[in-house]
Amino acid sequence: MDAFSSVLNKIHVPKHFERDNDAMSDLNTLLDNNKAWAAKITQSNPTFFSELSKQQSPDFLWIGCSDSRVAAEQLVGLQPGEIFVHRNIANVVTPTDINCLSVVQFAVEALKVKHIIVCGHYGCGGVKASMESQEHGLIDHWLGHIKAVHQKYEQQISDLEDETQRLNRLCELNVLEQVRNICHTPVVQRAWRNNKELTVHGCIYGLENGILHDLNVPIHQMNQVDDIYQVRENGNPVY
Amino acid sequence: MDAFSSVLNKIHVPKHFERDNDAMSDLNTLLDNNKAWAAKITQSNPTFFSELSKQQSPDFLWIGCSDSRVAAEQLVGLQPGEIFVHRNIANVVTPTDINCLSVVQFAVEALKVKHIIVCGHYGCGGVKASMESQEHGLIDHWLGHIKAVHQKYEQQISDLEDETQRLNRLCELNVLEQVRNICHTPVVQRAWRNNKELTVHGCIYGLENGILHDLNVPIHQMNQVDDIYQVRENGNPVY
Amino acid sequence: MDAFSSVLNKIHVPKHFERDNDAMSDLNTLLDNNKAWAAKITQSNPTFFSELSKQQSPDFLWIGCSDSRVAAEQLVGLQPGEIFVHRNIANVVTPTDINCLSVVQFAVEALKVKHIIVCGHYGCGGVKASMESQEHGLIDHWLGHIKAVHQKYEQQISDLEDETQRLNRLCELNVLEQVRNICHTPVVQRAWRNNKELTVHGCIYGLENGILHDLNVPIHQMNQVDDIYQVRENGNPVY
Amino acid sequence: MDAFSSVLNKIHVPKHFERDNDAMSDLNTLLDNNKAWAAKITQSNPTFFSELSKQQSPDFLWIGCSDSRVAAEQLVGLQPGEIFVHRNIANVVTPTDINCLSVVQFAVEALKVKHIIVCGHYGCGGVKASMESQEHGLIDHWLGHIKAVHQKYEQQISDLEDETQRLNRLCELNVLEQVRNICHTPVVQRAWRNNKELTVHGCIYGLENGILHDLNVPIHQMNQVDDIYQVRENGNPVY
Repeated sequence: MDAFSSVLNKIHVPKHFERDNDAMSDLNTLLDNNKAWAAKITQSNPTFFSELSKQQSPDFLWIGCSDSRVAAEQLVGLQPGEIFVHRNIANVVTPTDINCLSVVQFAVEALKVKHIIVCGHYGCGGVKASMESQEHGLIDHWLGHIKAVHQKYEQQISDLEDETQRLNRLCELNVLEQVRNICHTPVVQRAWRNNKELTVHGCIYGLENGILHDLNVPIHQMNQVDDIYQVRENGNPVY
Repeated sequence: MDAFSSVLNKIHVPKHFERDNDAMSDLNTLLDNNKAWAAKITQSNPTFFSELSKQQSPDFLWIGCSDSRVAAEQLVGLQPGEIFVHRNIANVVTPTDINCLSVVQFAVEALKVKHIIVCGHYGCGGVKASMESQEHGLIDHWLGHIKAVHQKYEQQISDLEDETQRLNRLCELNVLEQVRNICHTPVVQRAWRNNKELTVHGCIYGLENGILHDLNVPIHQMNQVDDIYQVRENGNPVY
Repeated sequence: MDAFSSVLNKIHVPKHFERDNDAMSDLNTLLDNNKAWAAKITQSNPTFFSELSKQQSPDFLWIGCSDSRVAAEQLVGLQPGEIFVHRNIANVVTPTDINCLSVVQFAVEALKVKHIIVCGHYGCGGVKASMESQEHGLIDHWLGHIKAVHQKYEQQISDLEDETQRLNRLCELNVLEQVRNICHTPVVQRAWRNNKELTVHGCIYGLENGILHDLNVPIHQMNQVDDIYQVRENGNPVY
Repeated sequence: MDAFSSVLNKIHVPKHFERDNDAMSDLNTLLDNNKAWAAKITQSNPTFFSELSKQQSPDFLWIGCSDSRVAAEQLVGLQPGEIFVHRNIANVVTPTDINCLSVVQFAVEALKVKHIIVCGHYGCGGVKASMESQEHGLIDHWLGHIKAVHQKYEQQISDLEDETQRLNRLCELNVLEQVRNICHTPVVQRAWRNNKELTVHGCIYGLENGILHDLNVPIHQMNQVDDIYQVRENGNPVY
């Protein structure tokens, strides 16, 4: 009996957990896959996991879409330990989302990543839903942030003749705006004021060919940020 | 020139983007990796991406930690298209986090996933930080949700003699509580009221051996939920 | 002993509560004021409280600044029961702030208010802080939403010669944008689709003279909203 | 023409604003009330507004319910300038609600208030809704925080025989828990570490008699807080 199960059997579960056999067989496939994967890695590199368990030191933070087809680590060929990851609907970054902001703070201040990659993808279902005139439920609040991007570039988007082009343009512009939003956060600006090396990139992934494109909009220093958003002085100690 | 670049050159970038050569070479490694990965897949299955680009239909939603060592798809051996993913600091689910809730809604209502897996991991840096008596900045607000789990199980945790055991027990209990939190959401309960098949699982990953453990706490129907949280009637049509 | 205290003494308070005498005397002043106020009202209208306790049916929702000088009910001469109130820093409304959105939903759908008033004020400390290039702490995230308003109207504001004028213009424009943000919410649009009478107003208060100005930007129907934000169809029943 | 209107007419309103005469007459009543109120104050104290416009220095922060019947300043007999106010549904404070947390930070660090009063009220509609097994829409997410209080004190509440008693007990316990939640925030703990005088009080208001009760649960120093939540060391300078 391993350390894990000795701990587990002390969890006091107040309601009985009935097993649904079909559900369990689905999960068991994943657990079996995992055992095979771990065994294969351990065979080729017996100390891989034990070394990695001591510390992570990724150079990259990935902020991407939850879409199952945009599998972060796989598509950039990185190993466990190499990229810190936040994924949400349509890779949105807002000024007051503590979920995403906590990830950014941990990545920048604790792990000292050198790159933040915002990765969108063409044909994004979240972006598409934001362009529809139909209710979708709770998610419509979240999509409000993408509608704001749409409104900012309304002319540029409506000039495109084709619906797919308009969707894909908004997917790109959404990445551009989220890159900027990250650069407006106190965490990123503080890193720059303290002369840390940190670049925020925007990329977009093509579902139909598996290719990741750099949007070529890197931001790595304060003077690339709109004056309104530049915070140039550290706060008073009482804050 | 592909469709992508014809679109890209129309983005009006108000500030010049200077290239930082080192930063770019790091990103270029990822872009090169990506080209090789896409080529390899296309070679073995020429229609893989074009088929997949039409639709995603994953059976699973993964809610895991942003930690770079807990690479969701890789460790359960799933391919692009098979698992929808949300990752944040310490795999926390709160009643009012629209970021995470929007992912859950999209996964359950639009994609009709059958399983939600909350995956924690031993030695989690976020959980560890929540146990320290030191300020960490913005993230301390996020960690407040883990402190609430700690307080709920204070006796059980303090009974453990070893600091690592206490940390790992809290990592497990945090998963258990987040499984419950998901089951308290209106989206999941609505799915159950509408007789959708949906199971929420709790798992925990061992960094030191690469093994994913099922915590055996599946919840798949309303009567497994504490009475206080059971919402049994659909809302009034005006809502 | 009244019903209240019989209930109170059953609260199990795990830590002892030491009384700080100065702090208590300050609070006691408020409690004394309250007794005098309640007695005065009851004297002139013996059933005022008992009638009001049965139900509230305000016609107005006020979304204003937390500033102590902008005392909502007092400055519009309304009695308890007449106006539902949300107050935050700089009367900001964002698409994903469940705090404010819950207030709006309750006011519109449960209380069926006919008017929502967004009230800003000149010389607002929150708006002022958003225009500074200095760190202020957690609040800087919140102020990011005001910076976005500033950026949208950058030219119009920078054209003003005087710093106070620029601040006050941004105070006004902030109200205008928050009026629109409310009109972009699913709750308000659903009310309009269901032919409910609901008008959103923008007002601004002058601290230096106590006068409330109507900004004359009422929105009371869908076609006053930018097309991008119009949601014209109710959701699919599964949502 | 005053300074205000000269500014106003430069707002570029992209959609025409049609006037709805009934809606306007309702608002006009409030504007007329305001003129009368300001005139009355100015008559008795000609410099009241001009003095007050220079600076606010309230001693109190009020965190109360949006309920129209719990009119903060009025019921404690305070004048404009004396109490900073945040009001939301059921006076809830959560660890990650930047709306409320920004108010607390501004009040404590910029205004240096000495007291924070969490004020609930008996018969609270938000607390009541949290006890129902019926969907209410978006607000159900917000109410999840009250259900957590209910669950924590499940036995104590279910022991009460009467439904109204159970509701009112939860109204009280909700105040108690929100008082604690405020004391768990980094802002309040930092104030204490820096030897600032700051007391957090819990009060509850009786709609049926207009009386405000002190729940006698003041917290004014770190050692009254559960150990798990005590943060005793300032952060590392890079944070």
